[in-house]
Amino acid sequence: MRPLRLGMVGGGQGAFIGGVHRIASRIDAQWQLVAGALSSDPARARASAEELGIAGDRAYDDFETMARAEAARDDGIDAVAIVTPNHMHAAPAVAFLRAGIHVICDKPLAATAEQAAQIEAAQAESGRLFILTHNYTGYPLVRQAREMVARGDLGEIRVVHVEYVQDWLAEEVHNKQAEWRTDPARSGAGGCVGDIGTHAFNLASYVTGLSAQALAADLDAFVPGRPVDDNVHVMLRFEGGAKGMLWASQVATGNENALRLRVHGTKGGLDWAQESPNVMTYTPLGAPKQILTRGGAGASAAGLRHLRVPPGHPEGYLEGFATLYAEAASLIRHADTGAPLPEGVHTPDLSDGLAGMRFIAACLASSEADGAWTSLAR
Amino acid sequence: MRPLRLGMVGGGQGAFIGGVHRIASRIDAQWQLVAGALSSDPARARASAEELGIAGDRAYDDFETMARAEAARDDGIDAVAIVTPNHMHAAPAVAFLRAGIHVICDKPLAATAEQAAQIEAAQAESGRLFILTHNYTGYPLVRQAREMVARGDLGEIRVVHVEYVQDWLAEEVHNKQAEWRTDPARSGAGGCVGDIGTHAFNLASYVTGLSAQALAADLDAFVPGRPVDDNVHVMLRFEGGAKGMLWASQVATGNENALRLRVHGTKGGLDWAQESPNVMTYTPLGAPKQILTRGGAGASAAGLRHLRVPPGHPEGYLEGFATLYAEAASLIRHADTGAPLPEGVHTPDLSDGLAGMRFIAACLASSEADGAWTSLAR
Amino acid sequence: MRPLRLGMVGGGQGAFIGGVHRIASRIDAQWQLVAGALSSDPARARASAEELGIAGDRAYDDFETMARAEAARDDGIDAVAIVTPNHMHAAPAVAFLRAGIHVICDKPLAATAEQAAQIEAAQAESGRLFILTHNYTGYPLVRQAREMVARGDLGEIRVVHVEYVQDWLAEEVHNKQAEWRTDPARSGAGGCVGDIGTHAFNLASYVTGLSAQALAADLDAFVPGRPVDDNVHVMLRFEGGAKGMLWASQVATGNENALRLRVHGTKGGLDWAQESPNVMTYTPLGAPKQILTRGGAGASAAGLRHLRVPPGHPEGYLEGFATLYAEAASLIRHADTGAPLPEGVHTPDLSDGLAGMRFIAACLASSEADGAWTSLAR
Amino acid sequence: MRPLRLGMVGGGQGAFIGGVHRIASRIDAQWQLVAGALSSDPARARASAEELGIAGDRAYDDFETMARAEAARDDGIDAVAIVTPNHMHAAPAVAFLRAGIHVICDKPLAATAEQAAQIEAAQAESGRLFILTHNYTGYPLVRQAREMVARGDLGEIRVVHVEYVQDWLAEEVHNKQAEWRTDPARSGAGGCVGDIGTHAFNLASYVTGLSAQALAADLDAFVPGRPVDDNVHVMLRFEGGAKGMLWASQVATGNENALRLRVHGTKGGLDWAQESPNVMTYTPLGAPKQILTRGGAGASAAGLRHLRVPPGHPEGYLEGFATLYAEAASLIRHADTGAPLPEGVHTPDLSDGLAGMRFIAACLASSEADGAWTSLAR
Repeated sequence: MRPLRLGMVGGGQGAFIGGVHRIASRIDAQWQLVAGALSSDPARARASAEELGIAGDRAYDDFETMARAEAARDDGIDAVAIVTPNHMHAAPAVAFLRAGIHVICDKPLAATAEQAAQIEAAQAESGRLFILTHNYTGYPLVRQAREMVARGDLGEIRVVHVEYVQDWLAEEVHNKQAEWRTDPARSGAGGCVGDIGTHAFNLASYVTGLSAQALAADLDAFVPGRPVDDNVHVMLRFEGGAKGMLWASQVATGNENALRLRVHGTKGGLDWAQESPNVMTYTPLGAPKQILTRGGAGASAAGLRHLRVPPGHPEGYLEGFATLYAEAASLIRHADTGAPLPEGVHTPDLSDGLAGMRFIAACLASSEADGAWTSLAR
Repeated sequence: MRPLRLGMVGGGQGAFIGGVHRIASRIDAQWQLVAGALSSDPARARASAEELGIAGDRAYDDFETMARAEAARDDGIDAVAIVTPNHMHAAPAVAFLRAGIHVICDKPLAATAEQAAQIEAAQAESGRLFILTHNYTGYPLVRQAREMVARGDLGEIRVVHVEYVQDWLAEEVHNKQAEWRTDPARSGAGGCVGDIGTHAFNLASYVTGLSAQALAADLDAFVPGRPVDDNVHVMLRFEGGAKGMLWASQVATGNENALRLRVHGTKGGLDWAQESPNVMTYTPLGAPKQILTRGGAGASAAGLRHLRVPPGHPEGYLEGFATLYAEAASLIRHADTGAPLPEGVHTPDLSDGLAGMRFIAACLASSEADGAWTSLAR
Repeated sequence: MRPLRLGMVGGGQGAFIGGVHRIASRIDAQWQLVAGALSSDPARARASAEELGIAGDRAYDDFETMARAEAARDDGIDAVAIVTPNHMHAAPAVAFLRAGIHVICDKPLAATAEQAAQIEAAQAESGRLFILTHNYTGYPLVRQAREMVARGDLGEIRVVHVEYVQDWLAEEVHNKQAEWRTDPARSGAGGCVGDIGTHAFNLASYVTGLSAQALAADLDAFVPGRPVDDNVHVMLRFEGGAKGMLWASQVATGNENALRLRVHGTKGGLDWAQESPNVMTYTPLGAPKQILTRGGAGASAAGLRHLRVPPGHPEGYLEGFATLYAEAASLIRHADTGAPLPEGVHTPDLSDGLAGMRFIAACLASSEADGAWTSLAR
Repeated sequence: MRPLRLGMVGGGQGAFIGGVHRIASRIDAQWQLVAGALSSDPARARASAEELGIAGDRAYDDFETMARAEAARDDGIDAVAIVTPNHMHAAPAVAFLRAGIHVICDKPLAATAEQAAQIEAAQAESGRLFILTHNYTGYPLVRQAREMVARGDLGEIRVVHVEYVQDWLAEEVHNKQAEWRTDPARSGAGGCVGDIGTHAFNLASYVTGLSAQALAADLDAFVPGRPVDDNVHVMLRFEGGAKGMLWASQVATGNENALRLRVHGTKGGLDWAQESPNVMTYTPLGAPKQILTRGGAGASAAGLRHLRVPPGHPEGYLEGFATLYAEAASLIRHADTGAPLPEGVHTPDLSDGLAGMRFIAACLASSEADGAWTSLAR
């Protein structure tokens, strides 16, 4: 099965989420990045493409050209990932959909309702797929939570609490990430509510399967001069009578990226937080609280479907492993081509292996000698 | 910079750690898997290679042939990853080192001291690199812990406690992973002590920079009939007078993969556990305990070097993201080629994006209307 | 300094909070229970008094008689504790205040606004003290939190989140505690909001020193047929512009008694939860999160004022200790008077002390013998 | 049922554990402190007794006199609590036992084996009770753990890990508590091992019901010049083949009073830590880990026997409550006698009650008005 060909709009040098999309696309070896319009600045677009190993003729200056050219190639991209600021989602999405190319798009959908409607129309017309990367829905335990609610483990849902709180904008911040997110021209009228409130809102619906029908909100911009909201309080009413609260904040001092969902039904409750994504608690009413782990005892079919590593190996285990591979590459390049070695390479090597062998032997010997102290010297 | 070319010995269908090595090698886009002798069973070796997109002429029946052939190619592999059971590390390691090819090898080094000596001799003669994948050393906070100890944040180290406890072998288990690990012919004389005890031992030394000089051990095989140890108690004496305890167990009911290191010096203490790898506590003597997060406030240079995502985005965030990419591939293949859609694809799409837009608009409207309940209906 | 004399209204056999008040009154040896009108049922009132060692002539049938009689005695009570259901606070409070006796009263103040006004008037007229047992304000770390906010550690307060969630009323419950709390005639019109919502509300104000000025609320009675609310969602606006959310619930499956307060200011954030009352986190903006412990490093003057045991000895340590004293009493009564011994007395005794001595000796001997295995046999 | 009469030896001004004993003895109203030889310094003994409300004729200068005099009284003490340093346990214990008075004694039993033997002989001869306050055995969840092991919930016990680690002696410390504990003449030859190692050892045996048969130990005195151990590493062998590790330390930087017990059997594992004494995890092999709470779902008979407050009300709740009672006493004394008011009295009062009433009313009103913002002004 050949990997699919991926193009990217946005995500050039200095961007955050574009790099995340690229890593994610590599993990399962199902995608290959082959084309891009990586920046609205053509020089940066080309330099970024070169860094990423994109061939020169597929490093485009703008997304319109890219959509046309890729649609015309036999080996054109299967899908495009749109990783620009919110106000720049709609135009490329429409262009690629019209060109017959599937779209993977970062959230929120767009900066304005008009832009959203344009995307909707283009998608309907094209029949192409539109995938929105509410990435928190990809965690195995979120999938399991959704399945547990759907199969009735919690009974009828009564109360849903979701919060997504950060503190990185507790003061005025000047960097690329902060600037477009607090600029209504680029982020849309919602600040915090669009940037992370939508994640929280999506997660609540994703897991419970309930549509929210009405809300009461209280939005603030606490940092003086900020033109968009940075703290969001919402009460929610769901279909069927469930009630909810949603809190999103970028000024909640003491929080990094604290997205947490709690769902309470007539028969039980669930609690999941993305900063510890490998555990979720589930309490059947009247029984002890259970700690469900990713893929561990009690995992549901949905919870087992996306395991890459066994229980107890936190997702993150792979990145730790990847660091060794990255360092191995540096060491090898250094050895073979004289390329300078980056600082801080501390990879275990043969000496560690030999020390480990001595450790094993000493353990066995000491234990056989009734615990006698045994030297580890070579 | 071209990606390096990777070969693999072992890791065919049914294996665990080989797949982990492959994912790890892709995350940073520095490696490309191009050759393999993936199984000692030639048919399985070829089938596995085909699945992984390895060209037919580089899918080898045995590692000796592979070492010779790859060494002879202009585009031969830069390194080989050896991911076989312990007793099968030495022979391929020696073959590839002699062929002038760098080696990345899983731990422990070998099943016997003789095998270890053979690797050592071959490496010394060849001058090629030998990287041992004690993967827990790759976590950013482990790097930070090492740096904090080295720069004196903890003062002089007095007491080191390391434990690595699991329960998956609390009963007799019959599967490929369990069988070779409890077979002295394949694992070596040490069971638990070799499989995970060496990780614990390595981590203690890696972080503290201290060599253990002597130990007193008490090993048990609690499961009746098991020919190797499954519980390991060790007291350690380090150079310079520090003392340690090490506990490794595969029968510690209630534990999945609980590796934890605590280091106590004259000026402070550290505590890190790999099941929550994004946090570490540090207590300067006489001051409040601090929760250090991966890349968060207080991160050291070493702790910042290997960040792929910001603080609060647990490593695992990438895998969640990757799931969406994998599902997008399935959806697209289904749409474009009619390939059957796997079960359980629940990817957010346009409707979620539109719901998010309505949410933002309703929040803004409700808040402007002094919190009036506002409909979310389309 | 003589202990003060305490009387009690309510709290007879079968009651909960009365017993808590009595234990609390004994811990610091400042009070002695000497009088009571413990039940509206005279027979139960007398039986309860006898159990508690209250002299027969001070076991009253009703609170009016008690107020008159105690006021007339030279050794009359210094204060009365009113621990009746909500609708029965006002009448005794007024009676004792008018009799010139200080009042300690459980919360909420009363079942109706009219009753509250009566108490207010009587207190103003009498000049006697009126203490309301919002007991969560008594935790040392709550005192410390209040002080930290007051001295500016958090800067200007922006966002306050408080929740108090339980699940004991997730279904219809039939017992004395549940019945009066869900009967508007006894609890007042508010159910959950009065019972625990007031605690949450009080705690938020107590710690922040801020008055709430307006709120928007959404109350539900999820259990069919329940005449009072069992889930409470509130958005709050405080003086000076801070915003808040309050969630109180008795149907939040998976929660026992989860009161939690989070306060976020311009310079830092605090997080405290009463189910783990000995720890609180404090994050100065831009610095690592600190775990403040009761009386530990970083404790403020207010946090040190009410320590009865050192840091690390959770409050609860005293109750564990008290259990041994209670068992000792049982053992002694059994030994001296032949009173039957209750089940489950498992108090350490001499044999444990001797085992401990052997343990110490063996540790010393083994260590002196370089860790040789040392017998613990007598 | 009359409270028992308690005498105390030791525990005068400046002592720690004596005060703890007194509080513990009051909590359940089963004891009354009526006599004491509270210090070896007669003046301090008398001043301490006066503070505690002990009558002048029962404030003794020395324990021998006290034993004789109390034995001769009709209303003599039922038991004596011995709360002196270790080397001063034996003499008073012997004296009171010989006088026919029950003894409650702090741990460890004595400073030397000779002293222990004297106590043992005196107890055997007298037939009086000897209660040793290994107070950690008094926690409800410790009782439940013991019962769970005894009834076979964990199967056959294989591995027991216990640790009791502190850091208060990580440097040389000069105060009354530190000095006698590090003076072999007063503490006995064991320092840390006697002071807290015995608690850990006792707890392991108490819960598992297993006798340790042999041990291998490695003791250190890390602080220069300290004449007794301050770090203790022990490997244990229990009857029947179970193995254990024990770590006790007073130099483990970052720990306050961290006693933790883990027990692993063939069918399941338990984990309890006294700094969070209201929760314990239990994992039946192959099933999700359960969080057992004090008195919560899944509580055993033994776990329910010593509840004073319901689940979710951490033990500590009582002390919080007690603080309000203590402050109420201060306020009342101030009001009635003009006694000076201590600093930091912050007791909720009528105004808080009124605020709570307004809160309830506003919640109800807002909710009835479909969540309209509702003023909280008076």
